[in-house]
Amino acid sequence: MRVLLFDVFGTLVDWRSSLIGLAETTAARTGVQADWAGVVDDWRRAYQPAMDQVRQGAPWRDLDSLQRETLTGVLSRRGIRLPAADRESLVRGWRQLRPWPDSRDGLDRLRRHHVTATLSNAHLALLADLLKFADLRVDALLSAQLAASYKPDAKVYLTALHLLGCQPHDAGMVAAHPSDLRAAAALGLRPIFIRRPSEWGPGVPPADPPALSDLLESDGLTHLADVLGC
Amino acid sequence: MRVLLFDVFGTLVDWRSSLIGLAETTAARTGVQADWAGVVDDWRRAYQPAMDQVRQGAPWRDLDSLQRETLTGVLSRRGIRLPAADRESLVRGWRQLRPWPDSRDGLDRLRRHHVTATLSNAHLALLADLLKFADLRVDALLSAQLAASYKPDAKVYLTALHLLGCQPHDAGMVAAHPSDLRAAAALGLRPIFIRRPSEWGPGVPPADPPALSDLLESDGLTHLADVLGC
Repeated sequence: MRVLLFDVFGTLVDWRSSLIGLAETTAARTGVQADWAGVVDDWRRAYQPAMDQVRQGAPWRDLDSLQRETLTGVLSRRGIRLPAADRESLVRGWRQLRPWPDSRDGLDRLRRHHVTATLSNAHLALLADLLKFADLRVDALLSAQLAASYKPDAKVYLTALHLLGCQPHDAGMVAAHPSDLRAAAALGLRPIFIRRPSEWGPGVPPADPPALSDLLESDGLTHLADVLGC
Repeated sequence: MRVLLFDVFGTLVDWRSSLIGLAETTAARTGVQADWAGVVDDWRRAYQPAMDQVRQGAPWRDLDSLQRETLTGVLSRRGIRLPAADRESLVRGWRQLRPWPDSRDGLDRLRRHHVTATLSNAHLALLADLLKFADLRVDALLSAQLAASYKPDAKVYLTALHLLGCQPHDAGMVAAHPSDLRAAAALGLRPIFIRRPSEWGPGVPPADPPALSDLLESDGLTHLADVLGC
């Protein structure tokens, strides 16, 4: 595989604990009490339906815009009143997510032998800020934005491969989420499943690896670098 | 300035001496004699007219394709017969250009305080390989390809700013070429001129800085980092 494409939220960075921490800090300043872990989990669950509208043909909107809207809905359903500036801090919080402990070193090793790129549903402006914050280095930032759609729409993967001048059989998709890998594998990319058992917090069983031929499974990016001989 | 956009060929990397070296190595293997510095200079001069066709509405083609065609013309006019595989090595040579001595350290310092991105007429596949080869780190690779045009077409700069979520007054364009800076400045970006006196080799006077208000001038990227306090 010449090219490795990486999902970002959940695969490279720990969105859940980062956002809970940010929400708690923000709320402590404002004096608002709430179950912030519950808010963050609800918010993340609202993400797929919001993207579905775009996948079904609604005009493309970036993740800031979708998440601003879904956060308002989540807070309203829970009866939480948070000032607009604090809501905006949480939306911007997706640019300040901590990497998993193996992500930085693993990416550095993997890019010695592969062209590495993000392939995320986040737009480029968010990705540039996030990878800078997390100090994660890849060879290129690619986003579903460049296909004006969202994963797992096939054209997101095909646009990324086209931009890197790469055939599907010469690329791998690295993700912690079966739906992402199933879509990539259907196009001929090698599916590479990263186990992130704490993505959804303690007590929530992790995703099972998808049943795909030629699946690579790994416990993280340094382990993947070992497996691939980087 | 939150964002700094960087031209690549001539500004970050020394295309001329790198390509002459590659051509001489390739030719020595094949036993073809020629004035390779002259070939490289002619080839580089054929670059603007080739892009003009695209800027004037011809279907967008990437730089590999344009440079494959212009190289064939340059060699033919000079009566040089080079095997197809060697011509292809030269076209691929644009992925193996050495950085100027200050580029790596300068970019590393500048990205501490700015979001840094390429804004090159090279397509992303070429840029990813080239920046990896030269070990140059930026926060994002952006290309005229994403606007399906070529600099100095305004939509190239506007597309880059849109993708980074940045207003023109909050961005600088860093380049060794007046035409690039004039186009960027006309849109409200801060023009930053880098003096690269040996871009066209010894004895060829360097470009004069363009007469633009608010122009920053610098002798290289570490010097620019000094000037900007990075």
